[in-house]
Amino acid sequence: MDTVTALTHEALLAMDQRKRAHLINSLGGFKSVCLIGSIDSQQRTNLTIFNSIVHLGAHPPLVACIIRPDTAERHTLDNILETQCYTINHLNESIYQKGHQTSARYHKTISEFDAVGLTPEFRNPFLAPFVKESQVKLGLEFRQRVNIDLNGTILIIGEIVHVSFPTPCWCTDGYLDIEKAGTIAGSGLDSYHVTHRLKRLSYAKPDLPLTEISPDYLTR
Amino acid sequence: MDTVTALTHEALLAMDQRKRAHLINSLGGFKSVCLIGSIDSQQRTNLTIFNSIVHLGAHPPLVACIIRPDTAERHTLDNILETQCYTINHLNESIYQKGHQTSARYHKTISEFDAVGLTPEFRNPFLAPFVKESQVKLGLEFRQRVNIDLNGTILIIGEIVHVSFPTPCWCTDGYLDIEKAGTIAGSGLDSYHVTHRLKRLSYAKPDLPLTEISPDYLTR
Repeated sequence: MDTVTALTHEALLAMDQRKRAHLINSLGGFKSVCLIGSIDSQQRTNLTIFNSIVHLGAHPPLVACIIRPDTAERHTLDNILETQCYTINHLNESIYQKGHQTSARYHKTISEFDAVGLTPEFRNPFLAPFVKESQVKLGLEFRQRVNIDLNGTILIIGEIVHVSFPTPCWCTDGYLDIEKAGTIAGSGLDSYHVTHRLKRLSYAKPDLPLTEISPDYLTR
Repeated sequence: MDTVTALTHEALLAMDQRKRAHLINSLGGFKSVCLIGSIDSQQRTNLTIFNSIVHLGAHPPLVACIIRPDTAERHTLDNILETQCYTINHLNESIYQKGHQTSARYHKTISEFDAVGLTPEFRNPFLAPFVKESQVKLGLEFRQRVNIDLNGTILIIGEIVHVSFPTPCWCTDGYLDIEKAGTIAGSGLDSYHVTHRLKRLSYAKPDLPLTEISPDYLTR
């Protein structure tokens, strides 16, 4: 039997700052790690890795992310507010190290696309750059900013106005097999993981046993 | 070369409602899937699966989740507002099917712990129930409610006041190896995945190459 560590609120607050950051960032579970592409009004592109992306709703199709203005994420925030659009691009195994490198604090005049070696891809008339090397790409229009006064972070909400993905990954019921598309998951501040599906499970109802949903891919 | 499907905003809005829900829920990438335990003032326990948990900050240690009041998540919201506390419990391979079943709409008088066969675990003086079968458990105090008027969802922010996890999963730098703890990831509305680590990467700085962080587990 494994030994268990239990920590109180006081122990968490007393912990070394970087150690606490690693621990607390791990406690939320696995998370989405994506590259957010943006552009300012002078056509300067920016690319930053985010691990705080969360589904907000399907109708309208809304995605939210948390921005920390005291980090490399600040330029992304400036650009989104300036041009009202941005892209979300899934990370895969072939680009995650370049993706991680975008978290370095580059000067505003340097594009992370150039600095880390990823390719901006433009889809007219959408302004913000997508990442060519990504397999699942979302174009979003800015909808709302919510300031979280508790800790100075900002919730940015966008509406999905464009999406592209490999056709063989799309199932007939609408589910997109992001594992098959090569999308990876993150944990903590710096850990990257490939995944292996256990099961898809049927819609749960009281007093009805769950069944497995078999992959039924759209082919067209 | 894979064929690519590209969808416009209009195509997304015109899509069958359930199909769109599956697709849009897949687009945010992999996500945390956890069980939120709560209790009302009459000591009735509740347990519901959430896939919208997001790290908000480490100091103070804050976690947020999105609640949809028109779903099984409603009782969780009522309980959190009533007793001001709740727990977040990581899913693992041995309990994810029971976890998924908690998304069924059980009557308020039925505890999902009983309905799906999981064990409530109480840690005095903390009121809300933890899940005994979970390996990584957080106790939270309610801090703030943010209504998202765009789609009627609610952001609930809590502060971590208690945490427990298997000691051999904790690294000297504070990172908690949730993969080693058996935590799983989710995608879409109903898919569950185990993970396999690619690498942990060093803190990124401009003009400095990334290095791999080797696991260095605390043993005590």
